[in-house]
Amino acid sequence: MKRVGVWIVGASGSISAVTLAGHAAMVRGLARPDGLVTERTDFAEAGFAPLSSLVFGGHEVRRRSLASAAAEILPACGVHGLAERLTDALEAIDREIRPGIARGAGPSIEADGARVVTTDFEAIEAVRHDLRDFATRNDLSHVVVVNLASTEASRVPHAAWQRLEDLDAALARGGDILPASALYAYATLAEGFAYVNFTPSVGSRLPALCELALHTGAVHTGSDGKTGETLVKSVLGELFARRNLRVLSWFGQNILGNEDGRVLNDPLHKASKIRSKDQLLPKLLGYAPETHVGIDYVPSLGEWKIAWDHIHFEGFLGGRMSMQFTWNGCDSLLAAPLVLDLVRLVELAHRRGERGVFSAAASFFKDPMGTDEQRLVAQDEALLAWIARR
Amino acid sequence: MKRVGVWIVGASGSISAVTLAGHAAMVRGLARPDGLVTERTDFAEAGFAPLSSLVFGGHEVRRRSLASAAAEILPACGVHGLAERLTDALEAIDREIRPGIARGAGPSIEADGARVVTTDFEAIEAVRHDLRDFATRNDLSHVVVVNLASTEASRVPHAAWQRLEDLDAALARGGDILPASALYAYATLAEGFAYVNFTPSVGSRLPALCELALHTGAVHTGSDGKTGETLVKSVLGELFARRNLRVLSWFGQNILGNEDGRVLNDPLHKASKIRSKDQLLPKLLGYAPETHVGIDYVPSLGEWKIAWDHIHFEGFLGGRMSMQFTWNGCDSLLAAPLVLDLVRLVELAHRRGERGVFSAAASFFKDPMGTDEQRLVAQDEALLAWIARR
Amino acid sequence: MKRVGVWIVGASGSISAVTLAGHAAMVRGLARPDGLVTERTDFAEAGFAPLSSLVFGGHEVRRRSLASAAAEILPACGVHGLAERLTDALEAIDREIRPGIARGAGPSIEADGARVVTTDFEAIEAVRHDLRDFATRNDLSHVVVVNLASTEASRVPHAAWQRLEDLDAALARGGDILPASALYAYATLAEGFAYVNFTPSVGSRLPALCELALHTGAVHTGSDGKTGETLVKSVLGELFARRNLRVLSWFGQNILGNEDGRVLNDPLHKASKIRSKDQLLPKLLGYAPETHVGIDYVPSLGEWKIAWDHIHFEGFLGGRMSMQFTWNGCDSLLAAPLVLDLVRLVELAHRRGERGVFSAAASFFKDPMGTDEQRLVAQDEALLAWIARR
Amino acid sequence: MKRVGVWIVGASGSISAVTLAGHAAMVRGLARPDGLVTERTDFAEAGFAPLSSLVFGGHEVRRRSLASAAAEILPACGVHGLAERLTDALEAIDREIRPGIARGAGPSIEADGARVVTTDFEAIEAVRHDLRDFATRNDLSHVVVVNLASTEASRVPHAAWQRLEDLDAALARGGDILPASALYAYATLAEGFAYVNFTPSVGSRLPALCELALHTGAVHTGSDGKTGETLVKSVLGELFARRNLRVLSWFGQNILGNEDGRVLNDPLHKASKIRSKDQLLPKLLGYAPETHVGIDYVPSLGEWKIAWDHIHFEGFLGGRMSMQFTWNGCDSLLAAPLVLDLVRLVELAHRRGERGVFSAAASFFKDPMGTDEQRLVAQDEALLAWIARR
Repeated sequence: MKRVGVWIVGASGSISAVTLAGHAAMVRGLARPDGLVTERTDFAEAGFAPLSSLVFGGHEVRRRSLASAAAEILPACGVHGLAERLTDALEAIDREIRPGIARGAGPSIEADGARVVTTDFEAIEAVRHDLRDFATRNDLSHVVVVNLASTEASRVPHAAWQRLEDLDAALARGGDILPASALYAYATLAEGFAYVNFTPSVGSRLPALCELALHTGAVHTGSDGKTGETLVKSVLGELFARRNLRVLSWFGQNILGNEDGRVLNDPLHKASKIRSKDQLLPKLLGYAPETHVGIDYVPSLGEWKIAWDHIHFEGFLGGRMSMQFTWNGCDSLLAAPLVLDLVRLVELAHRRGERGVFSAAASFFKDPMGTDEQRLVAQDEALLAWIARR
Repeated sequence: MKRVGVWIVGASGSISAVTLAGHAAMVRGLARPDGLVTERTDFAEAGFAPLSSLVFGGHEVRRRSLASAAAEILPACGVHGLAERLTDALEAIDREIRPGIARGAGPSIEADGARVVTTDFEAIEAVRHDLRDFATRNDLSHVVVVNLASTEASRVPHAAWQRLEDLDAALARGGDILPASALYAYATLAEGFAYVNFTPSVGSRLPALCELALHTGAVHTGSDGKTGETLVKSVLGELFARRNLRVLSWFGQNILGNEDGRVLNDPLHKASKIRSKDQLLPKLLGYAPETHVGIDYVPSLGEWKIAWDHIHFEGFLGGRMSMQFTWNGCDSLLAAPLVLDLVRLVELAHRRGERGVFSAAASFFKDPMGTDEQRLVAQDEALLAWIARR
Repeated sequence: MKRVGVWIVGASGSISAVTLAGHAAMVRGLARPDGLVTERTDFAEAGFAPLSSLVFGGHEVRRRSLASAAAEILPACGVHGLAERLTDALEAIDREIRPGIARGAGPSIEADGARVVTTDFEAIEAVRHDLRDFATRNDLSHVVVVNLASTEASRVPHAAWQRLEDLDAALARGGDILPASALYAYATLAEGFAYVNFTPSVGSRLPALCELALHTGAVHTGSDGKTGETLVKSVLGELFARRNLRVLSWFGQNILGNEDGRVLNDPLHKASKIRSKDQLLPKLLGYAPETHVGIDYVPSLGEWKIAWDHIHFEGFLGGRMSMQFTWNGCDSLLAAPLVLDLVRLVELAHRRGERGVFSAAASFFKDPMGTDEQRLVAQDEALLAWIARR
Repeated sequence: MKRVGVWIVGASGSISAVTLAGHAAMVRGLARPDGLVTERTDFAEAGFAPLSSLVFGGHEVRRRSLASAAAEILPACGVHGLAERLTDALEAIDREIRPGIARGAGPSIEADGARVVTTDFEAIEAVRHDLRDFATRNDLSHVVVVNLASTEASRVPHAAWQRLEDLDAALARGGDILPASALYAYATLAEGFAYVNFTPSVGSRLPALCELALHTGAVHTGSDGKTGETLVKSVLGELFARRNLRVLSWFGQNILGNEDGRVLNDPLHKASKIRSKDQLLPKLLGYAPETHVGIDYVPSLGEWKIAWDHIHFEGFLGGRMSMQFTWNGCDSLLAAPLVLDLVRLVELAHRRGERGVFSAAASFFKDPMGTDEQRLVAQDEALLAWIARR
């Protein structure tokens, strides 16, 4: 089997560093594949690309080496003594990392190492060039681009987002049309490569980009990896729905200390995230309880995210009860294996001849594309059914 | 449609009082059927017996009227101003309540109003007589007996529990063979009536009783209503299983203040309960993490039960994370609608010609009979499938 | 002993309704004085005015009777069957309630029954007239005015707030100078009566009003009753300080469902509250950890307030640990006895010849006047010392 | 100033390893003295022995080097990269560690490296010899013996514990009279050295040993270091007491994963611990609410202890409210600095001419000797007063 390329946008960020270090550790036999959904025994016969066949590269807007990122982040996630054994592997990947495009990402994004481009069109061309180069240089069968960059500022939709024809025309006129995430998505899909949006940014969601994917036969999916509080909601909500208990209010508060938290502290960026997190319950319950999703930046927490949720519900005879939970997780550790899972899933979908939005990956996302299903179990069953359907 | 009898063992206990008061309130239009699974829109076409067709009676070992029980318990559950509007309905049911059998229930069971019987055989005959009388007097199409009595003391299995022939012979010899719950189950099944064991007591679980049910064509199911901490486990466990996150330990502590809590404070009774609660995770996860289920009696809590669970788990690269939840529920409010659901389900099963263990009701129980499935969603899907299979 | 008048601003609000109903219940022997600090055995010899000597009246800007407020609020606080036994007492107080002044309180304050006044000066005169009338009509030895109105919008300080001379001149010119709480405080202090600010509104904090109090010999104190999360902080903070453990971050989130919550949902009003809550830790610890105080309105909670606090701290060898707490309280039940305590305290202070700011009441407030002491134990010890100093 | 000896019973256990590694780290400038009470600015003028003047030795019943213990425990406490820089210092202390006495400690104590002695008298002589040797070899001004061994099994009091004369006679007859902790205490006090009991074991609590201390002029104190849940209780209880809120029930559940947890899993050992933890609230509140203190062993937690406490209380008008907290601490990190504090305190007490029970150290203990005061703030104020009294 030829090797599969994985191109990460935000290649030196926390999630990427843990993903790439974790991949190297597993390939070298230094870590077990715990936390990878694709390693569950249910998936043993699925025919996924072996982990050892993955080759990594990416874009990064900051001046930061992957090895130093891993050396900082892994211990902050409670994983000690590993990063130093992977320096050579990470340095090798560093040589496959190119300066990224920060165009349209918003003012809170640190981008001291970004490539300067003057138009959206130029940005897309530059990314396409980097992707083709990566594929050729490494003789890859396919490339999966994964967006792991910080959440972009929310922005007003542009009229040209609806149809590919309009979008191409607008880009040709040199306008400032697309946020960075969509520039990458355009470039990826135009090359026929697969695109995974692990963030709440726009990515490939735009109708014009969905059209492009169908046109080139590219597979794409997203958005916003479901790793913590929302993951809990997506199973816990079933309790209330299946028992016919009425949720009156569901209040969720997240506090986190990493770069993600710093960026989300900017209200423009937070808006994108909260929109993504706050739509689950109405879909899952069939009615809209009072909800609130708070996200606050508490630097002392470092890589850890703590979520407190308070659920107020009404049962028999109008009796009111409550439950609360506290989730104490390390987002990067929770996200990294899912990134590898998604790479394997969309690569397999590509090999199976799927094209366009890949909705069977819904279980991985807060805001899944191509389906309204928000219940984790139903999403996972749908994935199992897709796998079995060969 | 003829009316359906519901005979409750433990008729003046907390759950029974809330069930019967709640039924009266719904029939009179004073309360909505919130918390009844059988009232979910999914079940709209199932053909359940209407709530208004149910007629109640039961056994009780304490001297305590249902009306006074309801007047005490409903406000303790946060439901005010309702009991006093239902006095007449509850007094009518009180007239259908007969002195119960406490034989073999254990020393912590208060039984000042129990019927004195000298052999198990005599006890069974007395119960059968009461059930037949109830059915005749009210011209009932069928009777469902529901065990809502306090958890019995755990006891050593008797050799005669395995085969009906041996059991009958042993009973004929006048021995002390069965705990009270099994005496009731025997009587019920022998009459061809349906039996629901809502408690962790033995009930109809014995092989000899399963044989009896198949012989008479009776439907029976159980055991131990899933209302609180275990209910949460049965959805939350999916998170870890579906995400391939390894649960290291799951520590659960329940505190409760009602009669149930008082009885469970006796180690003999607690053993039955904990056995029932502690088997779920290994079945649900496929491996056995460290687990602990504590139950302690805190009288100040009255009808409320508070559970704190701490879950320690391991993810990618061996990183360790945790979550905890606190459940703040009123057991009687959570259990009562399920009692009505179960009555409707087994009555429908009887009408549909089912016989023996009814495993499609697994979602209602901590320790379901006839299946190893412990995941709430899968259990509920199995129930929906059974309903659809007509 | 002559009777003591208690004049409540916000007389039909939640706290007032519980205070007045509770007072009536205690005087009639229907309730014990639990929760009153002044009923602790330490204070047995203090010489406080007997509860039975208190006479109530007040101002209210909404059209809402006290009896109906109590009938709604007490059950919502979990106190059933009491309000209906106090209707006559509450109706008698209703006859002592006058239309209030909403001038300058902010746009989120509902004020359908407010008195229309055109200048601050006119407002002050109207209040003074009502207070004098109340005292004369009831032959009172002294009057204590307590501000229990909703938190005002925060506003920019006015130059005339600094000196009484300037303030009087500005008022005489007919300007819009003072928020409602300060208008009441002015009127009270000008009459030589005592003023207690139980809210985070401005009240008598202005230097010009402190000057006025010293001039007339009036006693005043405040501000912002310490009833829940901040109360916990003010004892828990000692743990970290006394053990030399460094608090890194203290994140607090409050959710509440009553009128207070609705008003605080307006950012202008919330600012006043958060300022009051967020200053404690630096004073208590001697350094400023990362802190956050969130307040959100969750209507389903009704009269209940739930606070979740997460405390991250560093110990020996830089080891990081954490604790979290959830407070589940009913603000009105927690505040009401403190209102009666404060009335008794300032009345005693007046009898003892104190004048101006009364700082010995610091333990009752989030933002105490006249002292920087924020530790509950030290504040309470200071109060005991003041009591002993006679 | 001559050097001060610190002799630790249980020298290679978790707390000892962290104490000694931490001491070495601070002396070498690798760590700040965070968590040491004696380093608070309040104590700047107290005249404590400098940390650099302390010399360590001890007894240990297991075959385990201190360096390897530290290498295992520090990272388990979240302190990485430190143990390896202290190997030489810890190895030097290892050379001062002698085989300990396990006599009478109970069956759950691992003691593969214990010294074999046949009578209590012989045990005492052996310990005295080791202590004298330690003092001479290192030319020490004084020795402080600190009991950090695992909690002993609880045992029935012996008649000879009351008077020194009886005890000496019984020891001379060769009886099995004292648990290990008291054997050490006897030896220490007989030498005129200071004794600190950081555990709930018997230690120097026996009247006969108090008599011995007064006779030789030795200072001693204890017992059971207050590091986690009880520490929180000892400040939080003030909230309820000072606000006149009635605590109905206080339920505490501790889970922990280290050797301490393993030993406490044995009911005989757990009894000693729970007795120590469960007496605080009645003393602090002045009445006895329903209380429960649970301790369970959850190996996956390693060095971490998690405590969940639920407090149910009653306020104004009988309204019921609750709070809960979760404490997430590393016992060894919390205990170690207190060990150093106590050494400094009793050494200073010795220099100041104190003799017998030293009650000013009450703030450090769950079950303080010589005082009934259980409130942390009052205890700490008493310590400050003792320091000031020179």
